[in-house]
Amino acid sequence: MLVSFSIFPLDKGVSVGKYVAKMIDIVDRSGLSYRTSAMSTVVEGSWDSVFKVIKKCHQTLMKNCKRVYVVITIDDRKGARNRLKGKVDRVEQVLKRKISR
Amino acid sequence: MLVSFSIFPLDKGVSVGKYVAKMIDIVDRSGLSYRTSAMSTVVEGSWDSVFKVIKKCHQTLMKNCKRVYVVITIDDRKGARNRLKGKVDRVEQVLKRKISR
Amino acid sequence: MLVSFSIFPLDKGVSVGKYVAKMIDIVDRSGLSYRTSAMSTVVEGSWDSVFKVIKKCHQTLMKNCKRVYVVITIDDRKGARNRLKGKVDRVEQVLKRKISR
Amino acid sequence: MLVSFSIFPLDKGVSVGKYVAKMIDIVDRSGLSYRTSAMSTVVEGSWDSVFKVIKKCHQTLMKNCKRVYVVITIDDRKGARNRLKGKVDRVEQVLKRKISR
Repeated sequence: MLVSFSIFPLDKGVSVGKYVAKMIDIVDRSGLSYRTSAMSTVVEGSWDSVFKVIKKCHQTLMKNCKRVYVVITIDDRKGARNRLKGKVDRVEQVLKRKISR
Repeated sequence: MLVSFSIFPLDKGVSVGKYVAKMIDIVDRSGLSYRTSAMSTVVEGSWDSVFKVIKKCHQTLMKNCKRVYVVITIDDRKGARNRLKGKVDRVEQVLKRKISR
Repeated sequence: MLVSFSIFPLDKGVSVGKYVAKMIDIVDRSGLSYRTSAMSTVVEGSWDSVFKVIKKCHQTLMKNCKRVYVVITIDDRKGARNRLKGKVDRVEQVLKRKISR
Repeated sequence: MLVSFSIFPLDKGVSVGKYVAKMIDIVDRSGLSYRTSAMSTVVEGSWDSVFKVIKKCHQTLMKNCKRVYVVITIDDRKGARNRLKGKVDRVEQVLKRKISR
């Protein structure tokens, strides 16, 4: 299962990098495969393993924030593995050239 | 906590109303407060109570589908209650007129 | 085309109802069919008519805010009409009972 | 302005890589800065330049598909530049180590 998520506070003003970094730190230490981009972090794993991490991020952020927003998208394809890298590989294979990743 | 979610299969063709109806049925029987619109269902409850229902929807849909997509947005505001109705009430209060809901 | 969108500032603190109300006001005056829920507003119309309204919301909010976040989901089904009401009607038809909307 | 988007058909079955590749091809040829991950493509540019590309993707996909779904998230921060790389750099700077990107 591939899960993309973004999480941030609404009550900490325009700069939230410090809070976002703490979230990535939690994902990074979770042991799950992940990739962070400018807009979200994509994690690969089972429903329970992924949502354990997202719940921990949410709880950690709510300790110091009054309002938190989260966006999550899930793409679950039966029997598929190593999609974190594989889906983008497949795009390059179809286009027969490298893309920006 | 307010949670909006949409869930649907990618491998069942253009008409997915039957599958979506089953998902709303699960939410409706969960006992949680909710509202369904044309694009998503908004549920109000604790993290665990809401994600128990979304996980059940996901598992139920994956039984009969090969690929499932989910979009979730969360707005968690400390101490806030009855926001399913209250947030839209507040908009009407500010605008001093009824809006379409 | 059905388009659900949410838009809010990150630099105005925990209460953003006043800003959200202004956005709904713009949608309400646009003449497009719409429904507002606790998490988003769903608008029905052509690509250009809908994105004209969302762009106006974005520009209006950026006048007074330093950072703005937007979430948009689109469901475009060829030949389908009156889906704002019709999609939820269809769910009730399948379930043979009323749901919360 | 940073814009993350995902676009895919609902009526083409479980494998949609061919269609997604065509979308990335359009983004890649647009001249805009972008990065593609397993779940979305993040584009950096003005409202008009970015939505011109997303509209072209949508129109291209609708030519051959009966139903198309799109998810878009926008993070617009006044005066900020080069955020496609800069936002992730900032996370590594705070954490004082490299993360997976």
